Amino acid sequence: MLSYDIKKADSDSLYHYLYKCIKKDILSGVLPADEKLPSKRPFAVHLGVSVITVENAYAQLLAEGFIYTEPRKGFFVSAIDTGKTFGHLQSATQANLKQSREAQNYSEDQFSNFYKNSIGKPASPQKYLADFVNNQVDPESFPFSTWAKNMRKIICENQKELLEPSPYGGLMGLRKSIAKFLRGFRNMDVDPSQIIMGAGTDYLYGLLVQLLGFDKKYGVEDPGYSKISKIYRKMNVVCNFIPMDASGVIIDQLEETCTDVIHISPSHHFPSGIVTPVSRRYELLSWAAKSSNRYIVEDDYDSEFRMVGSPIPAMKNIDVMDKVIYINTFSKTLTSSARFSYMVLPKPLAKKFHEEFSFYACTISTLEQLALAKFIDDGSFEKHINRMRNLYRGRRDTLLHAISKSKLSHLVEISEENAGLHFIMRIQTRLSDEEFCKRAEEKGVRIGALSDYYTEASPSEHQFIINYSALSSKKLDKALNALYEVAVS
Amino acid sequence: MLSYDIKKADSDSLYHYLYKCIKKDILSGVLPADEKLPSKRPFAVHLGVSVITVENAYAQLLAEGFIYTEPRKGFFVSAIDTGKTFGHLQSATQANLKQSREAQNYSEDQFSNFYKNSIGKPASPQKYLADFVNNQVDPESFPFSTWAKNMRKIICENQKELLEPSPYGGLMGLRKSIAKFLRGFRNMDVDPSQIIMGAGTDYLYGLLVQLLGFDKKYGVEDPGYSKISKIYRKMNVVCNFIPMDASGVIIDQLEETCTDVIHISPSHHFPSGIVTPVSRRYELLSWAAKSSNRYIVEDDYDSEFRMVGSPIPAMKNIDVMDKVIYINTFSKTLTSSARFSYMVLPKPLAKKFHEEFSFYACTISTLEQLALAKFIDDGSFEKHINRMRNLYRGRRDTLLHAISKSKLSHLVEISEENAGLHFIMRIQTRLSDEEFCKRAEEKGVRIGALSDYYTEASPSEHQFIINYSALSSKKLDKALNALYEVAVS
Repeated sequence: MLSYDIKKADSDSLYHYLYKCIKKDILSGVLPADEKLPSKRPFAVHLGVSVITVENAYAQLLAEGFIYTEPRKGFFVSAIDTGKTFGHLQSATQANLKQSREAQNYSEDQFSNFYKNSIGKPASPQKYLADFVNNQVDPESFPFSTWAKNMRKIICENQKELLEPSPYGGLMGLRKSIAKFLRGFRNMDVDPSQIIMGAGTDYLYGLLVQLLGFDKKYGVEDPGYSKISKIYRKMNVVCNFIPMDASGVIIDQLEETCTDVIHISPSHHFPSGIVTPVSRRYELLSWAAKSSNRYIVEDDYDSEFRMVGSPIPAMKNIDVMDKVIYINTFSKTLTSSARFSYMVLPKPLAKKFHEEFSFYACTISTLEQLALAKFIDDGSFEKHINRMRNLYRGRRDTLLHAISKSKLSHLVEISEENAGLHFIMRIQTRLSDEEFCKRAEEKGVRIGALSDYYTEASPSEHQFIINYSALSSKKLDKALNALYEVAVS
Repeated sequence: MLSYDIKKADSDSLYHYLYKCIKKDILSGVLPADEKLPSKRPFAVHLGVSVITVENAYAQLLAEGFIYTEPRKGFFVSAIDTGKTFGHLQSATQANLKQSREAQNYSEDQFSNFYKNSIGKPASPQKYLADFVNNQVDPESFPFSTWAKNMRKIICENQKELLEPSPYGGLMGLRKSIAKFLRGFRNMDVDPSQIIMGAGTDYLYGLLVQLLGFDKKYGVEDPGYSKISKIYRKMNVVCNFIPMDASGVIIDQLEETCTDVIHISPSHHFPSGIVTPVSRRYELLSWAAKSSNRYIVEDDYDSEFRMVGSPIPAMKNIDVMDKVIYINTFSKTLTSSARFSYMVLPKPLAKKFHEEFSFYACTISTLEQLALAKFIDDGSFEKHINRMRNLYRGRRDTLLHAISKSKLSHLVEISEENAGLHFIMRIQTRLSDEEFCKRAEEKGVRIGALSDYYTEASPSEHQFIINYSALSSKKLDKALNALYEVAVS
């Protein structure tokens, strides 16, 4: 049986240590593809840990695609093709592990649960029994007093700095704070000069087209969030819709459509909730490495809101060929009305950006940049993240509990409930998706179907997207009952 | 002799009333082209007003190009071709006059002096005896306490509103405040829905290309501010440099280069300081009216900082064919570190924008939009403008006085000193512009040449741009002496 010296775990949590040991053996080939992993209970006894520890480690490996499961047979090692174009994978993995070790100084909590949905839909004008489409933060959770105090302090104490225009990429102080944050929370080793601040991801997508070229062919996930393709289209570039399988975008389709730049959210796909497993990630990196024109835009919009286990590592972490442009937003953790986004450019692109785009003015005011930097540096942000994770987990649990107690429970199947701030609910009904949503709305429940997000015919009938970040529990039972009535109507 | 019933002036200042009467007669043809206007002194006696009143009225008409002057001969009516494509000019003029009348409720002071330079160059890292390149506002002039108080109030009182994302065009409250402001200060009749807010003019230029089309040919002034052409080029559209004569861009060159969209600053050209006279304005509007593809981008970056007389009216005011896109910025009046810009779209374009671009998120945070709206609405902005105008006029006067007292005075000729926040100083020297600037910098004086802004060979040797908005008077005499030494070296 596999054996690891669990005493070496130190301050690292046991499950995370075990997860890292097994991951290392998979990546190094010690554990070959399709090898069966020990059953949980005997493995736990063997290692002298609890069954929960083994379960959690397996769950994390499963979520990231290092292992797969066969019902009633157990867990097996996935086939991960890392060797093809990555001769120096070993050293990359080493670097990765080194980062993981550095990250031991941070609590597990810090790793979890960070950004809110990057998709700010306007608040519903009407009142619903339940609104599963709204994905905003509610006013009570914004740290008003801290934010106001910080702003006041900055206006009083930083008057000179406040009136200096920010460099085009953002204030260096803020970029340093974000680099430190990415090291702690996302295990990413990033130089502040690689970080470019912008007033919203919409703005950054447009800037990216200018940087990568109007002659490139861009690709987006199908299904996916329609705004992204709209922006590429408005920027007058070719934008292909790339079909997905259960692991993410299909590589053959990238080749077939001659896509140069693929825009994906591998850590938590919207709307399906898919986590792209590590094998597909390496395939994507390998695809990108084949041409200097090719890049991967990693839109990491809510990966840190994983409710169970550690967040899925960013693709940027295994990006030894400098092919990944990492994009994320701060706005949504705080409030969707703030405009804080950033991208992390590969070093050669960062150099190009600084040489050719430095004439642009930064789109975020100096005051707000100083306020955000202070909020991160003094620990307020970390506190806020922890608070929000607990809040959202509570909302999710309340909802799941209410569903399980309702008549609806016999008609539904829930998936992807551990990541992001929405899950997928498959509902047995004879109604079409469109008809279902329409009738639900008539009964006061706003709900959206997964099929709405496909450009082609959807293979996902009767799957609905349940956003719960802004959900009130007051009329939940009534709302679920209404859904039941619609489903059987 | 011309006769006007000066008693009708009411609350309007006499000179402004006289200016409007003459302007009306020029536009209606009562005063034909090349007609000589009465000499100032007899005209003043005839009307029963002071000579200063007539002088000021003539100066304003001259600045706007309604009249021209011949040395020792007097003032003559300009040839203004308004009739060609503008059948309903008369009604437009009427509307114009109606607006002027509405504007009588505002004091003359309010009309003057508004935005600071839209061109935020980073503060000089070195200390200079004088820095004529730096065009920033200094920290002391920012209304910190009012701004801080407003922010605190908003955070305390508008929590719900504060967390709602702004509509893509900006908060309606702010757009209404701006529309009201434009009516009062710029005599413009604009519907709030025509106003689109954006985090900086750079951002808005990019948005305009998306709105007007990547297939259009864009044109910029030559000489001009190089950033504008850089942005068009980065947006991957054709950008022609259109040569200028003493009235602005040359229309024939627009035709010859097949330019569709011309980007100009008719009320105060940078860097030459030229004010495009009303005849050329009508010619430009007439050019634009010839094709549905054609538009004029009116970049009104500092027109309100006219130090003498009323601000030059915006082209948008005589834009009866809806061909002018008006762009301006708030950031610079307050501080170059804030990001408040807006554009006023012609109604058909506004409709297109709302239909096709509403998926975009606004790039300014809700908090800062609320703060700006409050600042305008409670009158703080108006107070601030008046304060800044006085400050800048003081700096200009100090500088002009110091020059007149210096040895340099015999070698220089100053022009365009009544508009914007810079003027042009022609210096007699045998040095090339490049050599002059280099030697001046060695002696601690930072100065830029007009010729630097031409793409082609410059017809403007030995003309230098003197920015004075951030100028300290402490070492001014030393600085002017240093320039003298360079000039004669």
